[in-house]
Amino acid sequence: MDTNMDISAAREHYLDWLRDAHAMEEQAETMLKAMEGRLEHYPELRMRITQHIQETRHQADRLRRCIEDAGGDTSLLKDMTGKFMATMQGFSGAMASDEVVKGAMFSYAFEHMEIAAYRNLIAAARLVGDATTARVCEEILAEEMAMAKWLEEHMGAVVSQFLARAGTNPGAAKR
Amino acid sequence: MDTNMDISAAREHYLDWLRDAHAMEEQAETMLKAMEGRLEHYPELRMRITQHIQETRHQADRLRRCIEDAGGDTSLLKDMTGKFMATMQGFSGAMASDEVVKGAMFSYAFEHMEIAAYRNLIAAARLVGDATTARVCEEILAEEMAMAKWLEEHMGAVVSQFLARAGTNPGAAKR
Repeated sequence: MDTNMDISAAREHYLDWLRDAHAMEEQAETMLKAMEGRLEHYPELRMRITQHIQETRHQADRLRRCIEDAGGDTSLLKDMTGKFMATMQGFSGAMASDEVVKGAMFSYAFEHMEIAAYRNLIAAARLVGDATTARVCEEILAEEMAMAKWLEEHMGAVVSQFLARAGTNPGAAKR
Repeated sequence: MDTNMDISAAREHYLDWLRDAHAMEEQAETMLKAMEGRLEHYPELRMRITQHIQETRHQADRLRRCIEDAGGDTSLLKDMTGKFMATMQGFSGAMASDEVVKGAMFSYAFEHMEIAAYRNLIAAARLVGDATTARVCEEILAEEMAMAKWLEEHMGAVVSQFLARAGTNPGAAKR
């Protein structure tokens, strides 16, 4: 803990970021479920999304306990995260003719917003001396990085399949 | 080139994605300039953003030439990218009390949307047989990855500085 730091101001921001992360995971679940519900012709991608929905639910639970242990509550959806999420959700519904490609791309960007959020939370948790939450965030970070890596490794195949199908069966190609 | 592929449909999507990428870079410049203009107390971050603004302009120029060579024009801002960008731009102006932390986080997410876009474009350019654009996109991808890596390596320091200043001087801490 940095002794020159105003610990109460730091803790307030830290709690805000934990709540942001919790709200982010709740919205992530909504977005992922919308994608899962629409995907028909990309079974591998759909299966990975199904797996990540389970992980996301468990992440939200663990964060809720961290927030409660730190004396906060999870009722506040922070405005910025909410705005970002609302946009992300817009991409997950009925979309453009290339929705699977855009969906994978935005999911990849979204995973990295989560990765940034957990890296920041780990740094902040250490500064305010919350070792338990730092450890939980490290576990969650590993799951987000695994999902991001999976998307990175499979996006090229999604693009190839999409382009191969786009001319003959655009309806099947897009989702 | 995949001979089973309907090449005209594939080329149409490919051109759309090139235009998306061009629009993305133009909006990225707007967003980065807004961040650059607001940052005062994070000189290292500001300097890296200034550098990336130059890179971003050059990227947009190179993409415009690729689009023209492929017989397209750059007048269409694709709706989805525009929506995403509009949200991102919202984050770059006067923001929350932790704007530098959120700004770095969203920039990191945004860099990964760009990384995904260029990975997809490289795959698509190879499928439609556009070796020149594939090479340009590989060059741009390397620049985006370098920016993302820089942000990843420096976000923790931004968080520490922010939290250390937040109690004593919130106005300086936030930007």
